[in-house]
Amino acid sequence: YKTLEAVASLYASTKNPKLNEMMDKAIVVIGKSQREDGYIYTKAMIEQRKTGSNNQFQDRLSFESYNIGHLMTAGCIHYRATGKTTLLNIAKKATDYLYNFYKSASPTLARNAICPSHYMGVVEMYRTTNDPRYLELANHLIAIKGKIDDGTDDNQDRIPFLKQTKAMGHAVRANYLYAGVADLYAETGKDSLLNTLNLMWDDVNQHKMYITGGCGSLYDGTSPDGTSYNPADVQKIHQAFGRDFQLPNFTAHNETCANIGNVLWNWRMLQITGDAKYADVMELALHNSVLSGISLDGKNFLYTNPLAQSNDLPFKQRWSKDRVPYIGLSNCCPPNVVRTIAEVSDYAYSVSDKGLWFNLYGGNNLTTKLADGSKISLSEETNYPWDGNIKISVK
Amino acid sequence: YKTLEAVASLYASTKNPKLNEMMDKAIVVIGKSQREDGYIYTKAMIEQRKTGSNNQFQDRLSFESYNIGHLMTAGCIHYRATGKTTLLNIAKKATDYLYNFYKSASPTLARNAICPSHYMGVVEMYRTTNDPRYLELANHLIAIKGKIDDGTDDNQDRIPFLKQTKAMGHAVRANYLYAGVADLYAETGKDSLLNTLNLMWDDVNQHKMYITGGCGSLYDGTSPDGTSYNPADVQKIHQAFGRDFQLPNFTAHNETCANIGNVLWNWRMLQITGDAKYADVMELALHNSVLSGISLDGKNFLYTNPLAQSNDLPFKQRWSKDRVPYIGLSNCCPPNVVRTIAEVSDYAYSVSDKGLWFNLYGGNNLTTKLADGSKISLSEETNYPWDGNIKISVK
Repeated sequence: YKTLEAVASLYASTKNPKLNEMMDKAIVVIGKSQREDGYIYTKAMIEQRKTGSNNQFQDRLSFESYNIGHLMTAGCIHYRATGKTTLLNIAKKATDYLYNFYKSASPTLARNAICPSHYMGVVEMYRTTNDPRYLELANHLIAIKGKIDDGTDDNQDRIPFLKQTKAMGHAVRANYLYAGVADLYAETGKDSLLNTLNLMWDDVNQHKMYITGGCGSLYDGTSPDGTSYNPADVQKIHQAFGRDFQLPNFTAHNETCANIGNVLWNWRMLQITGDAKYADVMELALHNSVLSGISLDGKNFLYTNPLAQSNDLPFKQRWSKDRVPYIGLSNCCPPNVVRTIAEVSDYAYSVSDKGLWFNLYGGNNLTTKLADGSKISLSEETNYPWDGNIKISVK
Repeated sequence: YKTLEAVASLYASTKNPKLNEMMDKAIVVIGKSQREDGYIYTKAMIEQRKTGSNNQFQDRLSFESYNIGHLMTAGCIHYRATGKTTLLNIAKKATDYLYNFYKSASPTLARNAICPSHYMGVVEMYRTTNDPRYLELANHLIAIKGKIDDGTDDNQDRIPFLKQTKAMGHAVRANYLYAGVADLYAETGKDSLLNTLNLMWDDVNQHKMYITGGCGSLYDGTSPDGTSYNPADVQKIHQAFGRDFQLPNFTAHNETCANIGNVLWNWRMLQITGDAKYADVMELALHNSVLSGISLDGKNFLYTNPLAQSNDLPFKQRWSKDRVPYIGLSNCCPPNVVRTIAEVSDYAYSVSDKGLWFNLYGGNNLTTKLADGSKISLSEETNYPWDGNIKISVK
């Protein structure tokens, strides 16, 4: 879905008909794989065909919601780029399935949502379709996180979200959650959501984020670490935020997806508040810990983005320190960095009642409408970030 | 038992009759608390009286073996210092109980031995009584560690001891295990034991020990850390050795008992090999990470011995950074450092066929016999460690 989203974004700027054909073919196949009730997650469905069981959302560590969430986003982007509803309709059917599933699911089942891309996806579906059930679903998904008895810090559900004061656990899960909550706040204006987001942002930015915008300092660790005497309190975490200022250089995890999550979160905070500090973090992460996830020729990828690397570490970390064409154990990062780069122009400018906002600098041509409907066209010439000279020509 | 051992050691050098009386009174009380079958561990026995259940060694994290192990050592030291067998007989009865228990116990029950002081204790009982069953028991205790299905790195029993190549897990448990195995090697000469001890020693000394001789860099952590992709492989560890060179200053755990364990282990390696490198580590730890565990006036104690401390850490660690009169959560360290200081003169010299060996420098008077039976008397005058001038006068 992330690759499809990248192709749709590329099509939006190039209008290359070959890309359109590629997408059409893929969407037909995707549509055929969807169950009648809307459920769609091939990894589980292949297993279901083998075993005859129709179980879903049983495995707390499965990526069903993550997968379906990316289908939603891809469906919306594809619709926006092509005007076609083929993928959007598949996404609608899947979102309807989730809506019905979560209506009756226990909190235990409902929590089975790691790397929750679907919070963002469901809100995007609401924005695209105006179906109020989708906003209801997004509200419910966040609310239900607070009702879990044996949650984990790794999954940000040991403490109900609105009672959290520190960023903890798996950094992709955390940043995707924060981005999804920011989307929910943008549509609902519930102050309590923004209050917690502000606490998380301050904690991440003052104590836990690398100078590169990278998030998640620890490969493996515990939460809490060093403070509780009760072993039962101490949980394992992985690929996660560490303690404040616990930011090792060589063993920094900084998963490409976590750093992209940081961009997605800050982009939403920027849209909510108009505060430039969020654009600064977006730019920081994009240049320093997202671009690092892909080679210059676009063919090789990193899962982790440490600040230093060495052939002489006294242990072999589980992710390659060198960029590789395919990351067999978890191929989430490569399509994520591809779609992010394909969409980077979307983040460059914002428009509001006050005018045009420059979020990211870089050579580009812009043609758009201001809030009052008047057209504006400009070109930006610069060698940024290699030097700070920016030449803007309004046409 | 450790306090009693300290008093016995103090009595050995002072012959103060008040100390003898104190011990006699305490030993009578201890004897009264022992069960008919030899079992003695008041914490569990009080519970047993309340519940009517006779369960023991059910809780993997209980300190029964640790406790009984220290009874054995105290019994031997008390006998050596006073010639009385009152405490030794209680220790014999308890060792006999352990001998019978372990004969029939499953590996699962038998593993319930954290901070295994009893490996050293049982071998010391063998040396003191010449009862061959005790050597058999010590052999069995080490062998049974390799037969556990769901062991942990924290407890040094996930990998059978003889297959271990790196020091892992809880540093008190590790160093006490290594010291006990060194005792077993000293009595059996089994090369495989010494081979593994050498691997552990090289790993600890080259990669994991602080410059102070302190052991156990992590409050909480995982083992392995950062290398396995399978979450089930990754176990929690605590108060434990970290990865190679993972030696934080402010959050170093370095429990006083772990550093004492390092002294006990190196003392045994020194006796086995006569290699001065072991005396060097003993001295390093005694001066820098054992003495640090007690205040100059002897009234306040540290559980952890970090390399730096601050009032401004962004989290409150579970152990006080300042010395306190009583460590409520786990009062193992204070009596351990007291008995170690009371016995430090025992470590100062060794005698072998080749003559007299100086292990630790410090002002003292020595009167002893050499291996050939000839008497030797000398005095050592020095300001060591403040300067390196040592004046030896043989009388």
